[in-house]
Amino acid sequence: MTLLTELVARLADVVCADPDVMEGYRRDRASWAPAGLPLALARPRNTREVQELARFATEHRVPLVPRGAGTGVAGGANALDGCVVVSFERMNAILELDEAAMYAVVQPGVLNVELKQAAAQHGLWYSPDPSSFEISTLGGNVATNAGGLCCVKYGVTGDYVLGLEAVRSNGEVFRTGGRCRKDVAGYDLTRLLVGSEGSLALITEMRLRLRRKPAPPSTFVALFGSLEAAGHATASIVRAFEPSLLELMDRTALRAVESHAHLDLDLDAAALLVGQTDTENSSQLLAMQNACEAAGAHLAYSTEDPNEGELLLKARRLAYPALERLGSVVIDDISVPLPQLAEMLRRIELVAAEHDVLVATVAHAGDGNVHPLIVFDPNDESARVRAHAVFEQLLVEALALGGTVSGEHGVGLIKAGYLRRQLDATSLELHHAVKRAFDPLGILNPGKLLGSS
Amino acid sequence: MTLLTELVARLADVVCADPDVMEGYRRDRASWAPAGLPLALARPRNTREVQELARFATEHRVPLVPRGAGTGVAGGANALDGCVVVSFERMNAILELDEAAMYAVVQPGVLNVELKQAAAQHGLWYSPDPSSFEISTLGGNVATNAGGLCCVKYGVTGDYVLGLEAVRSNGEVFRTGGRCRKDVAGYDLTRLLVGSEGSLALITEMRLRLRRKPAPPSTFVALFGSLEAAGHATASIVRAFEPSLLELMDRTALRAVESHAHLDLDLDAAALLVGQTDTENSSQLLAMQNACEAAGAHLAYSTEDPNEGELLLKARRLAYPALERLGSVVIDDISVPLPQLAEMLRRIELVAAEHDVLVATVAHAGDGNVHPLIVFDPNDESARVRAHAVFEQLLVEALALGGTVSGEHGVGLIKAGYLRRQLDATSLELHHAVKRAFDPLGILNPGKLLGSS
Repeated sequence: MTLLTELVARLADVVCADPDVMEGYRRDRASWAPAGLPLALARPRNTREVQELARFATEHRVPLVPRGAGTGVAGGANALDGCVVVSFERMNAILELDEAAMYAVVQPGVLNVELKQAAAQHGLWYSPDPSSFEISTLGGNVATNAGGLCCVKYGVTGDYVLGLEAVRSNGEVFRTGGRCRKDVAGYDLTRLLVGSEGSLALITEMRLRLRRKPAPPSTFVALFGSLEAAGHATASIVRAFEPSLLELMDRTALRAVESHAHLDLDLDAAALLVGQTDTENSSQLLAMQNACEAAGAHLAYSTEDPNEGELLLKARRLAYPALERLGSVVIDDISVPLPQLAEMLRRIELVAAEHDVLVATVAHAGDGNVHPLIVFDPNDESARVRAHAVFEQLLVEALALGGTVSGEHGVGLIKAGYLRRQLDATSLELHHAVKRAFDPLGILNPGKLLGSS
Repeated sequence: MTLLTELVARLADVVCADPDVMEGYRRDRASWAPAGLPLALARPRNTREVQELARFATEHRVPLVPRGAGTGVAGGANALDGCVVVSFERMNAILELDEAAMYAVVQPGVLNVELKQAAAQHGLWYSPDPSSFEISTLGGNVATNAGGLCCVKYGVTGDYVLGLEAVRSNGEVFRTGGRCRKDVAGYDLTRLLVGSEGSLALITEMRLRLRRKPAPPSTFVALFGSLEAAGHATASIVRAFEPSLLELMDRTALRAVESHAHLDLDLDAAALLVGQTDTENSSQLLAMQNACEAAGAHLAYSTEDPNEGELLLKARRLAYPALERLGSVVIDDISVPLPQLAEMLRRIELVAAEHDVLVATVAHAGDGNVHPLIVFDPNDESARVRAHAVFEQLLVEALALGGTVSGEHGVGLIKAGYLRRQLDATSLELHHAVKRAFDPLGILNPGKLLGSS
């Protein structure tokens, strides 16, 4: 009996080995990460079937590659040769939504937006808002500890995970955390699994905290003649106020959006800052606008109208599609301490010029989390090589400024080598020791996050 | 050469073996947890000396028991026979306070209040506020993931830890996390060490996030004729508003405080709820007061004056000292989901009556975190036994209500057996595997948290 026939015999309704179907499950959106040829695709419907997959994988030393919606950009969900890709698309139920306890219990295949909508029906809010929230799954969000735009006030995905159910590589199921917001009973295995990119266990159920819905936001926008001024404005706003969103676009991003959408943006500006506040204190909005002007903004405007605010955010939301018109876009993801934000933006411009590559930058400025959008002609090999060099050089620059090689997108395949540069030798050894503690045979998403050891 | 002479030879200025001195380092405030006789007390001055202690301990298989100020109540810092107690009292420097980056780098021996004061000089705030904040160390706070009163809005200690420096049991030093608020590079070893009670590594340095100082709070107080009504008020306030504090006292606590301090409290009330808000929206205060009245409060009062607010909090702050006048007090620490709060309070009254033990309860109500204060005559062995039975029965009741055996005080020695009841078999096995990954020889605080294996 071949491996595949045994797998089909054990999980007939779950397994698919049609090459045409599998082709759609081989990679995420990391355009230059390698992707292997899977043995099979598995679409389990419940925890029991995930356990059976794990037992099969352990018996035969077959790698399992878990997968949400494939919207990741680090190659974390890319297939390995001979692996079983485990898609959680059929485990897509909201199992419980407890309004009084203010949490939901969901399966990993539920889309972020689906939980947001279900919570809204009870006047509640699931806060984490990665840009992909309409198409990415909560399982993927938790596996990568996804960030987003509201993190500056409301934190990242991990801040909303109360507890998990997960399956070990040997097929055993276990639970972490619980129902309580305060819980110090034992090691924080919940936080250890969050962001572990499917390399420690297969998450089969998540208990996620919900919040009361905040007031509608008011919005300001400001234009700056220099990156330094925009950096100073960002720091002084975070220092003195509580923005619920604080986003930045650099000159190149502004120009790309303007030529795409004709919003009448000021093309001489070095940077645009757009911010929101949802406190019910209207003086905060004007004070943030004033902070921009004090930092040197040559134009600043604010509105308490949520619809007009959404229009002001439009330029920021259009950055990615505008850039995609100009070529293939690779999105980098680094974070630096807030005082280094302007210097990081300056270095991005330098590195882009040095390698003759178009790089437009958007940033979750309030968190120091920067997304250089690296554009290149996919048919020009030399351009691809230069774009790749820029991508990697920016990781080096982030580390030099005391930053991190990933703020919110994860390490996956494409940054494993740089994670090894970021961590010291003992920390790296502890990472491997933790991996072995959970998955001694290296069945779960091998080669991701930690690289090949 | 004996073990002790070798240790003294290697770390002369650090080690003390005077039995009179060591006596003060044998236990924390867990009055009925066992405490052994240490081989020596070590008071290292820097990371290098901590590393040398770890190397000595590993070479000779000597347990190390790390210790902050000894204010813990779970026996986590209690000595073991033949161990070296490692007190961090000499590593008490604030190494860095970066106002722009909004973090401080501190050694573990710094008191919580010292960082609060240093931050306040820059208009910043170190939020975590365990009741012991004036006498407990940040190292102890991080090792136990200490909670406090402001958690209901501002989260627990772990939410403020950006990164750590720590020493493994083999003497290797490593760093976790970093300077960035958003950082997904690798496993979250920071959160794994937070709350690990010194059982995974010796924390030698901590980078802690600071906040802008919030507005002065306004305060309400409300009295209820039933626990159910107080529970409903708590749930509806958390559901609809954003209190920065929400504390509860039951009838027994109220009576003890009244007979101690004569504050003219209503002794017919079943519970008192006191809450604060620091939003600049003054309608929130009245709305919370109204929510209490709607839930059945027979008296509710609010004030925007911070000084008067502090007076309203006085009864809550006096609960522990008032109870101590009546006998030895053991403080229990459990959490339940918010909808179970009233039922948990009801069960506490039942269990106390059943065992004929005086139990007064205070609670960080907004988090569902309940502290039964169990009072007994230390000279009456039967009373001690009954008090102990109550302590343990309340852990069982918390588990039955979907809660946890420790919300914020930790597991230490006294709850290791109940942690094993809370975790499933695979989770427990993973706890041990993680322990072995960090500390394969079991040098660090053995027997704490996980118990003797």
